[in-house]
Amino acid sequence: MEKREGKEGLSLKYRKSQFSEWYNQILQLAGIIDKRYGSKSFFVWMNYGYEIMLNIKRYWDKLFRDVGIKEMYFPLFVPIKYCEKNLDWWEGFKDQAFWVKGAGEKDWDHILRPTGEPAMYPMFSIWIRSYNDLPFRIYENVSSFRYETKHTRPIIRDREITLWHEIHTAHATKDDAEKEVKLHVKLYDMIWKKCALYPLRVNKPKWEIFPGAVGAIEYYNLMPSGKVLENGSINNLGQAYSKKFDIKFIDKDGKKKYVWQVCTGNGARLLAAVIGVHGDDKGLIIPPEIAPIQIIVIPIYNNDTKRKVIDKAKKMWRKLSKKFNVEIDLRDDVTPGSKFYDWELRGVPLRIELGPKEVENKKLTVVRRDTGEKFMVKEADIFKKLEKTLSDIQDNLLKRAKEMLESSIKTAKNEKEIKTVLDKKCIAKVYWCGSGECWDKIKAIDEGAELFGTDLKKTNYGKCVICNKKTDIIGYVANTY
Amino acid sequence: MEKREGKEGLSLKYRKSQFSEWYNQILQLAGIIDKRYGSKSFFVWMNYGYEIMLNIKRYWDKLFRDVGIKEMYFPLFVPIKYCEKNLDWWEGFKDQAFWVKGAGEKDWDHILRPTGEPAMYPMFSIWIRSYNDLPFRIYENVSSFRYETKHTRPIIRDREITLWHEIHTAHATKDDAEKEVKLHVKLYDMIWKKCALYPLRVNKPKWEIFPGAVGAIEYYNLMPSGKVLENGSINNLGQAYSKKFDIKFIDKDGKKKYVWQVCTGNGARLLAAVIGVHGDDKGLIIPPEIAPIQIIVIPIYNNDTKRKVIDKAKKMWRKLSKKFNVEIDLRDDVTPGSKFYDWELRGVPLRIELGPKEVENKKLTVVRRDTGEKFMVKEADIFKKLEKTLSDIQDNLLKRAKEMLESSIKTAKNEKEIKTVLDKKCIAKVYWCGSGECWDKIKAIDEGAELFGTDLKKTNYGKCVICNKKTDIIGYVANTY
Repeated sequence: MEKREGKEGLSLKYRKSQFSEWYNQILQLAGIIDKRYGSKSFFVWMNYGYEIMLNIKRYWDKLFRDVGIKEMYFPLFVPIKYCEKNLDWWEGFKDQAFWVKGAGEKDWDHILRPTGEPAMYPMFSIWIRSYNDLPFRIYENVSSFRYETKHTRPIIRDREITLWHEIHTAHATKDDAEKEVKLHVKLYDMIWKKCALYPLRVNKPKWEIFPGAVGAIEYYNLMPSGKVLENGSINNLGQAYSKKFDIKFIDKDGKKKYVWQVCTGNGARLLAAVIGVHGDDKGLIIPPEIAPIQIIVIPIYNNDTKRKVIDKAKKMWRKLSKKFNVEIDLRDDVTPGSKFYDWELRGVPLRIELGPKEVENKKLTVVRRDTGEKFMVKEADIFKKLEKTLSDIQDNLLKRAKEMLESSIKTAKNEKEIKTVLDKKCIAKVYWCGSGECWDKIKAIDEGAELFGTDLKKTNYGKCVICNKKTDIIGYVANTY
Repeated sequence: MEKREGKEGLSLKYRKSQFSEWYNQILQLAGIIDKRYGSKSFFVWMNYGYEIMLNIKRYWDKLFRDVGIKEMYFPLFVPIKYCEKNLDWWEGFKDQAFWVKGAGEKDWDHILRPTGEPAMYPMFSIWIRSYNDLPFRIYENVSSFRYETKHTRPIIRDREITLWHEIHTAHATKDDAEKEVKLHVKLYDMIWKKCALYPLRVNKPKWEIFPGAVGAIEYYNLMPSGKVLENGSINNLGQAYSKKFDIKFIDKDGKKKYVWQVCTGNGARLLAAVIGVHGDDKGLIIPPEIAPIQIIVIPIYNNDTKRKVIDKAKKMWRKLSKKFNVEIDLRDDVTPGSKFYDWELRGVPLRIELGPKEVENKKLTVVRRDTGEKFMVKEADIFKKLEKTLSDIQDNLLKRAKEMLESSIKTAKNEKEIKTVLDKKCIAKVYWCGSGECWDKIKAIDEGAELFGTDLKKTNYGKCVICNKKTDIIGYVANTY
């Protein structure tokens, strides 16, 4: 088992009331990250946490490749001249950038990659020449860097954003770009399912979209803190960037046209949401499909039965390893009770307890992490039963996530009701006229409160929660990270 | 097919005589990298090149995991206070570092990760406490950064060293560390085999090893330029770093002891060697086991036979895709001859030509990239035959690499003979007394010449090539990158 520190003083019982402390402690205790790296707001990914993320990454890699999106890699250094191609952005962003230079260099010529556009799009304008080159669809797995001056939080707001993917595509027509957006909604839905998460999918209010872009879909998870976590986006960029970066192609009709672009991105916040949404007072619960350890085998013995039990447990471990991610806990200086505690804390979906009785009766005691349910399984049925149970846990976690979200969205008809909903750590669903004035007034209701997105579907008409104007726009209000 | 540029003016015929130009051109033409990124000595990994590297990476990931080495990830920012723990190194290195800071920050507190030690070992000293924590074995896939002021060369000497792995282990005894070294020799041999490469494995001369370390094994490939490329190392660090970074454990006897450490590392230079060693005047030859495209299907037709041939070619492509990495070239504006040229340039190991005759006779024409051999295969035998041929190509490339290296190592008995061997773009094998004075004199023979390593085995005695002293040390001399 990996080294863990900092157990002193933790109470996991305060997950709901003191989520922030719970979150910070569990990251360290469960071996997700180590915050003791000697630089503020940077951390080390410990093996257990990294493996969970790599499981998610391997899945997105497969999804993207299967639909023909090609992986590339762009330098982490972005020349200032590339940044200046998008001057509005650059003027606003340069104070959040990390600047980098060689030891002897006088001039500041580079920042560290904050996002894909300034590194990628100048190359797009070299590569894309004719309609034959379209659609052009690539992605990259990469770290991004922001000099965050706000309060940072591991995996949620980092200065090095690790295990991040970014897809960028270019198309000949607006229609093609819209089809691409639909494909990505499907792909992201599959990633959410893999993580047993159920986010709220919204449209971004139009003043939060890049000027000239067509629209943006964003995903949010409600965390136990009552704050929503922005978690991935699909951006229909229109021709906004192709005009800035001069990405043109010669169409079949011989005319030069700007391409239509789509980009999407997400990363380790998926794990932050898994931790927040599925954790409980005992620690993490990792969905079986992304769990580096799906099953932990714990032998229970005394001096007389030790040999027999351990032999059997090792056999079982080897046997199950053919099909599942299984580990065995053979520590000799720790009680079974402590082992249960440790593996529950790490969120391993299934525990197998194996003592002399189990050896004798050719049965195994199996315990589910999500429900705590304990049951006996005949050795002969073990593969089938474990497979079925892991699949049930995955389904159950997804169901829970869906119910948690749905039961936390509460209609509010006025400012006071919004405040009441937010105080309950829920999301307020409101009618909103679409105006900036009313949006500002909603923002003023509470510190951190925000109408973070609107429903993708139009519904019946109602009255704006602020100005009472007739509207068919549904907005969602919550505290945000 | 991916966009390619810069074909004008290339002659691939000059591989031997002008390797450097050949190398630079082929990287761009074959879609390995794009050097037109707006920042000197940084480049974009194009999909084709990146996929070859990812195939190599996936293989090393599997090897390392299978022997229980755990993947982690450390920040790219290394605080200066960590660097200063190894002050001798830091004083020499700081001028080759990339310095980084947030836009508003006054002080320079960080450099970008040049190598694993300064980022990792301060954490080792936190994590490792007792003999129970040992062996401690981790690795990382990561970019490293050097502010190279020497002439940079893509994939050989870069400022961002991408797709690099680094293994770091800590052990209770010197013996355990030595066993670990032996394991890594085996693992690296497997990676070489995967790449169909046969390097020269040498010991580093002792003054090139970190003071206090036990020893280092290094690998070198002889490139067509006549220069040897250092390509990976296995370092038995002894207690040199554990003393600097204070990595101690309480042993079974209750005493505090410094750990014994091993580290290894290698990365994209593996691909540089594949390109250099296996390339020919037609372009690349990618070994089948790491080829993103193992087989290219090229339909050959006229207007009458187009439909029939393309249908058949697509069927064949789909069928073969179940077992191999296959692509089909359906470009309509390019002659079959140009297609042959393109895919030979990219080094695809096998080409299938499929015309009306092949459709009729239920046979396929298959062409090997390594030998140019062309033969017919019955459709019924196709899977077996392709599998066998790919395996033969892999073996043949490895055999070639071995022969090329072995035939290029020539014994030299005096300084003049060394010079003659180097002029032939070969490696000189010499007796060497082991002294720094003679080493310096060898270095003076030619600009760039160096005794880069010594044979791992001791042999019969002979006379030092410089001073005539009796010695059983065999040294290797070549021009180096």
